[in-house]
Amino acid sequence: MTSSPPPAQPPLSADLPRTDLTRHRRLREQGSLDRADLDAILDAGFVCHLGVVVDGRPLVVPTVYGRDERWLYLHGSVASRSLAGDLPVCVTVTHVDGLVLARSVFEHGVNYRSAVIHGVPREVTDPDEKLVGLRTLTEHATPGQWSYARRPNRKELAATTLLALSLEEASVKIRTGAPDDGDGPDAELGVWAGTLPLTSTWGAPVPDPVLPPDIPVPEHIARREGARQG
Amino acid sequence: MTSSPPPAQPPLSADLPRTDLTRHRRLREQGSLDRADLDAILDAGFVCHLGVVVDGRPLVVPTVYGRDERWLYLHGSVASRSLAGDLPVCVTVTHVDGLVLARSVFEHGVNYRSAVIHGVPREVTDPDEKLVGLRTLTEHATPGQWSYARRPNRKELAATTLLALSLEEASVKIRTGAPDDGDGPDAELGVWAGTLPLTSTWGAPVPDPVLPPDIPVPEHIARREGARQG
Repeated sequence: MTSSPPPAQPPLSADLPRTDLTRHRRLREQGSLDRADLDAILDAGFVCHLGVVVDGRPLVVPTVYGRDERWLYLHGSVASRSLAGDLPVCVTVTHVDGLVLARSVFEHGVNYRSAVIHGVPREVTDPDEKLVGLRTLTEHATPGQWSYARRPNRKELAATTLLALSLEEASVKIRTGAPDDGDGPDAELGVWAGTLPLTSTWGAPVPDPVLPPDIPVPEHIARREGARQG
Repeated sequence: MTSSPPPAQPPLSADLPRTDLTRHRRLREQGSLDRADLDAILDAGFVCHLGVVVDGRPLVVPTVYGRDERWLYLHGSVASRSLAGDLPVCVTVTHVDGLVLARSVFEHGVNYRSAVIHGVPREVTDPDEKLVGLRTLTEHATPGQWSYARRPNRKELAATTLLALSLEEASVKIRTGAPDDGDGPDAELGVWAGTLPLTSTWGAPVPDPVLPPDIPVPEHIARREGARQG
């Protein structure tokens, strides 16, 4: 991992690249090459699965992320032991939108949106970029929180490992809609077929039990109650 | 991957093992060694993130799974290209239960339940075990569906790649409850702190648009509407 701040770079292409890593080998009809789809999938979540190779074996850990136009910022402590060096990672973000219940078990599946990003992350060490990256992470999960909670001091900043992964080499897969066996012989079976949607929803804020009762829930948190996440 | 059916084996230990791969290196207070926690996390979901090493680089893909007492069954086609051989995998299942909103940005976090399973999967080729494994997968995601939908025929069975991964080497992490900075100096800041829960809920079944209107939604699907998932 390099420690220098990133040089100014041109914007990323609106089309996702086709590389050896991102080329869709299976279920090509579910692949998207639209960068807007990538951005939307990333913006709909805040926990990714980070894959690294440790002693030749895969390790996949959940961790929080945020993004800007070019970089995915990752809270790196969870994998810092595994990321000491210029090591490739794979970051996957998946939203499960429901079950696809077909007439035949063979055609069963899942409606989902998934993004896979490949690259070698750099550790962010420049204090200014680190603060910007942590703001990006914080605002990604909880918009409005950076200007509400106490921001990191110098000591906390030093104790935080932040990784930045380029959003250049990424691929997207999306499946939506009904099962695929509605026009085959199984359609005559009289079996119900369709989808069972799954939705993630924010609940009511739960105050810390030791919080003084006169501190109100701030508007930027309260307004999420009942809103869809993902 | 071996093709022989598994030999009869003693039950797994109620405690999860401490191995080089499962030992908790960070946030030990969040680690659980109770196999019942592992089972509960696996039962609360049906999509995992499967990590493999391809040409020395990590690849993480979402795929569906089911389990019995000893084996995690994985729909292997998504990674079959990457799993041609006795290759180690890492399977991670994560449920995100909400945001932990502390007084300071530094103490922010996520409430979650996560299981990580390490091992070398075997490809299930014995037709009887394959059918049992596919039933396990199907019933895991949609209880009641195996005896309702048309089951795989010989051709479909041959076209399906099913992997079985031992549940022996696994680790669990769980974080619940309020932020950790309620007893520190930041408690004087007057900042609201607590958690913002996130819940996954099954919606109303959506019939395939080409489904004849006289086919009713079966009870085992209809009854999930409004139920919590995860």
